[in-house]
Amino acid sequence: MEIRKVFLNEDETPRKWYNILADIRVNPPLGPDGKPVSPDALAPVFPMNLIEQEVSTERWIDIPEPVLDVLHIWRPSPLVRARNMEKALGTPAKIYFKNESLSPPGSHKPNTAVPQAYYNKVFGIERLTTETGAGQWGSALSFACSQFGIKCRVYMVRVSFDQKPYRKSMMEVWGGKCIASPSQETKAGRDALEKDPDTPGSLGIAISEAIETAVGDTSGKTRYSLGSVLNHVMLHQTIIGLEAQKQFKKIGEYPDIVIGCAGGGSNFAGLAFPFVHDKINGKEIEILPVEPAACPTLTRAPFVYDHGDTAGYTPLLAMHSLGHTFVPPPLHAGGLRYHGMAPAVSQLVAEGLATPKSVTQLEAYEAGMLLARTEGIIPAPETNHALACVVNEARKAKEEGKEKIIVFTWSGHGLLDLSAYDKFLSGTLSNFVLSDEEIAKSEEIFMNYPKPEFLKSR
Amino acid sequence: MEIRKVFLNEDETPRKWYNILADIRVNPPLGPDGKPVSPDALAPVFPMNLIEQEVSTERWIDIPEPVLDVLHIWRPSPLVRARNMEKALGTPAKIYFKNESLSPPGSHKPNTAVPQAYYNKVFGIERLTTETGAGQWGSALSFACSQFGIKCRVYMVRVSFDQKPYRKSMMEVWGGKCIASPSQETKAGRDALEKDPDTPGSLGIAISEAIETAVGDTSGKTRYSLGSVLNHVMLHQTIIGLEAQKQFKKIGEYPDIVIGCAGGGSNFAGLAFPFVHDKINGKEIEILPVEPAACPTLTRAPFVYDHGDTAGYTPLLAMHSLGHTFVPPPLHAGGLRYHGMAPAVSQLVAEGLATPKSVTQLEAYEAGMLLARTEGIIPAPETNHALACVVNEARKAKEEGKEKIIVFTWSGHGLLDLSAYDKFLSGTLSNFVLSDEEIAKSEEIFMNYPKPEFLKSR
Repeated sequence: MEIRKVFLNEDETPRKWYNILADIRVNPPLGPDGKPVSPDALAPVFPMNLIEQEVSTERWIDIPEPVLDVLHIWRPSPLVRARNMEKALGTPAKIYFKNESLSPPGSHKPNTAVPQAYYNKVFGIERLTTETGAGQWGSALSFACSQFGIKCRVYMVRVSFDQKPYRKSMMEVWGGKCIASPSQETKAGRDALEKDPDTPGSLGIAISEAIETAVGDTSGKTRYSLGSVLNHVMLHQTIIGLEAQKQFKKIGEYPDIVIGCAGGGSNFAGLAFPFVHDKINGKEIEILPVEPAACPTLTRAPFVYDHGDTAGYTPLLAMHSLGHTFVPPPLHAGGLRYHGMAPAVSQLVAEGLATPKSVTQLEAYEAGMLLARTEGIIPAPETNHALACVVNEARKAKEEGKEKIIVFTWSGHGLLDLSAYDKFLSGTLSNFVLSDEEIAKSEEIFMNYPKPEFLKSR
Repeated sequence: MEIRKVFLNEDETPRKWYNILADIRVNPPLGPDGKPVSPDALAPVFPMNLIEQEVSTERWIDIPEPVLDVLHIWRPSPLVRARNMEKALGTPAKIYFKNESLSPPGSHKPNTAVPQAYYNKVFGIERLTTETGAGQWGSALSFACSQFGIKCRVYMVRVSFDQKPYRKSMMEVWGGKCIASPSQETKAGRDALEKDPDTPGSLGIAISEAIETAVGDTSGKTRYSLGSVLNHVMLHQTIIGLEAQKQFKKIGEYPDIVIGCAGGGSNFAGLAFPFVHDKINGKEIEILPVEPAACPTLTRAPFVYDHGDTAGYTPLLAMHSLGHTFVPPPLHAGGLRYHGMAPAVSQLVAEGLATPKSVTQLEAYEAGMLLARTEGIIPAPETNHALACVVNEARKAKEEGKEKIIVFTWSGHGLLDLSAYDKFLSGTLSNFVLSDEEIAKSEEIFMNYPKPEFLKSR
């Protein structure tokens, strides 16, 4: 019988994260004065040990033992061969995925939530604030905080808060507190409500609320935690790709194509960055971040300096951005509804090290249904976007008659997102496509900001 | 660092199931004439290859390769050491669990759904009917049918159908059809609705509907599938315990106490039966099935002959039963709301090979919360019942100062049952305790049935 899953034992888990900033250069974040922000300026928002990681250019960074110990609740994650899907597509391609849905919160997010909670804890922080879109990140941070005995306060985008009550329940089972955003608790929230009392909310607004709450706590015991975009988040996620490399080595294979869905960029980065390292060192490999056509940051938005949040509390980040006031259409893939993209991922695209793709919501769900009915696992809406690209690449391999090896991240399960499958099955799921005019308009907001430098790392 | 999980590779998966009927004797099922039913009499309901398994007394039965291949989507399941829970309880006991929540439908149920779908497929069956309470079994069979390309029709107890719409969505993602029971589709359903148009339904009624639909299909291409109670179901679940034995061997340990929650009995049997085999062969080991105090089959109901369903379509089974018209209180652990208990499990209790325990709903959720906040995974309501017993045994070990080794099955995750956690957290979750009068009254229905023989296997 052919093997489906490649396991690693816990003593084979990577002991170091890979830091891509050792291999590529990125434009620095800028403060309100247009100058690079100093680490100290970030101290009210993040603990200094994480700020040090954020700016580090060391290639390999030790994973602390207490972090590994919690990651081992579900890690190492299996590398799975999707044989049934290959058969259904009649492709000569071999399709593998890292199953990141096996974590207690059900996604890849705890890979960074756990170290973030740990570093805050050892820095003496007693409470973390954060935002969440569809709820994956908020659940992950609540889970991580429960493991280290710190409090967690989550601002959840209202539309998801109303549609996905189970996510709030999950956070509360782990002892977190979940508040619909915009809320009356913060100036950013009150401003948003004043502008539109019926606003569905957005990640940008929720980030503003969470940052405001963290820096507003005069005890100094509260910090903010972000689930994507930043360098240290990408760093923590690289455990996915590092495990995958060990697993491919075990079976004597190496991928030709690496695929991940990209909202803020952390799921994609987690699998892809260790392979980017190989690519920089001469390996031939295609690296494909996939985004929704309804929020096309990498494929259609310019590489600029822009804020990470709606209120403009964050420094300016050099990234592909649709403009920080852009409110994406109500896609079910809440994790992909973000106006910007991680600077490190944006930089890879700017340099041609990664080739972005976009797919529509319907393409994504068609691929998700194929997977659910072949491989059995019901994917998260975000994962469906990666899947649609996998299907396209597998079909291309068939046309070309090539035995390509494809690997992607199964970023999470869709068990709390089943209403979207209902819509798909009843034919009422819609596609959203943005016009050039809409994109141009949303981008006006950063037109007068500084421009990032075009950096060539190699 | 201490290891959390003991993995097996796919080439270490057991290749045979353990059949407890080689080691114990059970009273035969009886037909309407009060005589043992012949295998042929069951032919309209089940395919002959499964009927042969049902009556087999071979100790080891080969697992077919196509079944193993599908089980390998998630199996072997890890044996996990619950170190954080041990610490929280301050117990010298070592606590292990088999994590059965990792299957695509999220429970142990597919361990038998997959072989049942397979045997029906090779027998030429094109459609399966079944019932489901909370939805775990209906999802599992829909998943299994999608793997072998057969149709699946699920009668879901109305109260759960209304409360857990995501379970229906899951079944439909896998191509199954889910109908609220009682329905207008069957005589059993119409009778139930006539008696009480607002009935919340029950597993007993839903079983009647599913059997009626299967035997009523004159094409002969439809059969019925049951997710618990029967011998062949217990057989298929033994893969859990057989894997656990291999995993304990790997780490040079052996359990003192084996615990599983018991509704129809399959989850308990899956882990426990291979250890019962060891016990019969001289091992000292405590074997504890755990049931809800609100549906106390093994702990308070007599060992009798009774029907498995409300309408009385099934043969009489020798089992502990509260009476086939008993409608259990609206516990959240839908999988434990069954009036009877597997004959093989009932027999173990009758012989003193297993010692049943019961716990209240509140005890169960307290234990579940402890686990969610220590080990991270949110347990299913059914699992919480096993957990409450684990907590009791771990505390006893602490009092006695003994380093007991405890193992239990994490039967499923609670991600689609989070509303019950909301109630627990808000203090509105209730306990149900049955009076002796209620129990005596519900049991009147089988008073005139034949009595099972007291069998001593050893």
